Amino acid sequence: MKELFGSPGKASGLGLRIGQFVFAAASIGVMVSAHGFFNSTAFCYLIASMGLQVLWSFGLACLDLHALKSKRSLQNPVLVSLFVVGDWVTSILSLAAASASAGVTILYARDLHYCNATPHFPCKKFQIAIALAFISWFLLAVSSHVMFWLMASV
Amino acid sequence: MKELFGSPGKASGLGLRIGQFVFAAASIGVMVSAHGFFNSTAFCYLIASMGLQVLWSFGLACLDLHALKSKRSLQNPVLVSLFVVGDWVTSILSLAAASASAGVTILYARDLHYCNATPHFPCKKFQIAIALAFISWFLLAVSSHVMFWLMASV
Repeated sequence: MKELFGSPGKASGLGLRIGQFVFAAASIGVMVSAHGFFNSTAFCYLIASMGLQVLWSFGLACLDLHALKSKRSLQNPVLVSLFVVGDWVTSILSLAAASASAGVTILYARDLHYCNATPHFPCKKFQIAIALAFISWFLLAVSSHVMFWLMASV
Repeated sequence: MKELFGSPGKASGLGLRIGQFVFAAASIGVMVSAHGFFNSTAFCYLIASMGLQVLWSFGLACLDLHALKSKRSLQNPVLVSLFVVGDWVTSILSLAAASASAGVTILYARDLHYCNATPHFPCKKFQIAIALAFISWFLLAVSSHVMFWLMASV
């Protein structure tokens, strides 16, 4: 298998996983701190999806760390296939959740003018949580493309 | 290059492109016929994104048809790279648009109870348009994965 930026068991791969984990956890933290987030299904779905991403990225970060410490390779076809499926499922769910939440926030802010009309409505927090979710998704998309490339180029 | 289901210049590839084109056009048609769709930015974005998908898929369907008729191969690295970039950009935009619209529709239907409270609110049409957009995105996702696989396995 080729050696690419972000390959499993490499320092760059570990960096990507830590980034995904940190941004997803931050997104959950900001969203949970926004008063009344549970009134919208899309925001609850964002928390669930980011929760799944936190678990997945944290698990793979531990695996990368173990591989780096013990100098073992994670690049065997079965493991990479497993990473590909997990990465793709998680990344599609994350993009869908971030987009659905963005759609709802834009509806509140631009179409219904809730953000200006209701001073205590936490629009800023919703926007920050969604921006963090998009950053986390972008890092996951990089990982999933690298995994798919590794699998295809065997 | 390998011969895969949905490769460019093959009958299966042409079928996928026609499916993407038809479902995206149907999604636009249903959304435009829903009264008041322009009040939500997400629904306008869905129409723009499906419009882009219609143009892209129609263009590639014509190219596939031409390749099939003239028995020419479209599988050269430059063309496939171009297809990969176009497919990925279009498919990410389509998934984001369909998810944003789904988030807004769920907000209307489940969270704000607009659909039951306002008899003339075209919730059913919004739902049908979004379902068609998701089908179109799924077909495009198949094409984009095949293209990426072809590019990676050169």
